[in-house]
Amino acid sequence: MPETADPIVTAAEIAALIDHAILKPDLTRAEVDADLDMAARYGIFSVCVRPSDVAHAVRRLSGSGVAVGTVIGFPHGTTTTQAKAAETVQALADGAVEFDMVLNIGRLRSGLIGDVEADIAAVVEAAAGHVVKVILETALLDEEQIAAGSQAAERAGAAFVKTSTGFAGGGATVDHLRLMRASVGPRVQVKASGGVRDLDTLLAMREVGVSRFGTSATATILDDAAAREAGGPGTGASDTSSY
Amino acid sequence: MPETADPIVTAAEIAALIDHAILKPDLTRAEVDADLDMAARYGIFSVCVRPSDVAHAVRRLSGSGVAVGTVIGFPHGTTTTQAKAAETVQALADGAVEFDMVLNIGRLRSGLIGDVEADIAAVVEAAAGHVVKVILETALLDEEQIAAGSQAAERAGAAFVKTSTGFAGGGATVDHLRLMRASVGPRVQVKASGGVRDLDTLLAMREVGVSRFGTSATATILDDAAAREAGGPGTGASDTSSY
Repeated sequence: MPETADPIVTAAEIAALIDHAILKPDLTRAEVDADLDMAARYGIFSVCVRPSDVAHAVRRLSGSGVAVGTVIGFPHGTTTTQAKAAETVQALADGAVEFDMVLNIGRLRSGLIGDVEADIAAVVEAAAGHVVKVILETALLDEEQIAAGSQAAERAGAAFVKTSTGFAGGGATVDHLRLMRASVGPRVQVKASGGVRDLDTLLAMREVGVSRFGTSATATILDDAAAREAGGPGTGASDTSSY
Repeated sequence: MPETADPIVTAAEIAALIDHAILKPDLTRAEVDADLDMAARYGIFSVCVRPSDVAHAVRRLSGSGVAVGTVIGFPHGTTTTQAKAAETVQALADGAVEFDMVLNIGRLRSGLIGDVEADIAAVVEAAAGHVVKVILETALLDEEQIAAGSQAAERAGAAFVKTSTGFAGGGATVDHLRLMRASVGPRVQVKASGGVRDLDTLLAMREVGVSRFGTSATATILDDAAAREAGGPGTGASDTSSY
């Protein structure tokens, strides 16, 4: 088997780029705990948990070095600006340090860009200096809307633009990521999410400037990275049950 | 064509049972307005709109006789109890008069019934005497969980138990509706939603005690009812693009 064309990256380097998603609405407490413990074991950057799990996750991951983030207005982005801000304040009080908000998709598609920007700005303000990532839900947008949404996020002070919730039937594509990267300045980072199920996909997205990855295939991806780091061919595994 | 076995019901009687759902995250303002105007034209009981559309819908439907309801913690039910209460207070201030909340599905599946009940009770309190409907998301639950969730909703003071969001890949079934009806006392009503796409389905669900229907196939259903009321065979149409 030929060696991969990608430069060698260590599993630890990849782990530092991952927000592990624990977001499905039907997950039980035991299933959440298994994922939190996996995150600690692999030493990834963060977990992204359901708002009602933030306080529990912060307690369970205390001392692990894994940050706890959550989602705001998730997954539809259709709550009011006031509700998104209140949700952010509550999540901050519960111990979350990163906030992945869904923008108002219908308003963006209606050309109401001022509303979209104000909605994001209210969450940025409520987050009090912490990282806010703005989920565009690219599967529901055309290219012009993706660019306009990315630019509104930058003007509103977001730290990241992010592709997808994982719940709208389509996820990140390299083309959309390239467009998002080109639509914002260097101060704004790009996060890929939805469909990041294997290491090669992650590496290809990293090549176009993505600096954070949301996935629930974390163990599959990092096991592959560790195998390649050890000098083997890697597993090439893809976790199709994940998002 | 044989006459239907159902007792004759008028289109107006059916219209009085319908909450027309305008909830898809990508709907534009123009698409929302078309649905609001349809609701006024048919004289249905209410529209159920996205939280960020409540104030607009209240203005547009002013004087129409159509009530405006909205959704809380929708569609995952994974927001915190505090966030659900704050969202309800905001929606009430914006003019909503009915509140369809999603219960905490993961907590219900984990057997944490006290948490589930407290979460609902906080929304009932925030709704200040207005109608609260509790969405169970039956497609993600087993029968024991459906019964336990329905009973928690009754103890917490909810006016309705409701089957589905329409976004979890499965909707109302007659078996689940019968179980929900049997799980609560006569003070609590049952709402069917998700998969109510034609008049015959609606009438079959009404037979097992359902008293409210959430659907986006409103026009199809009411046109069929009007045709049957006029003495014709009805259209029998089903709107498969709806939920």
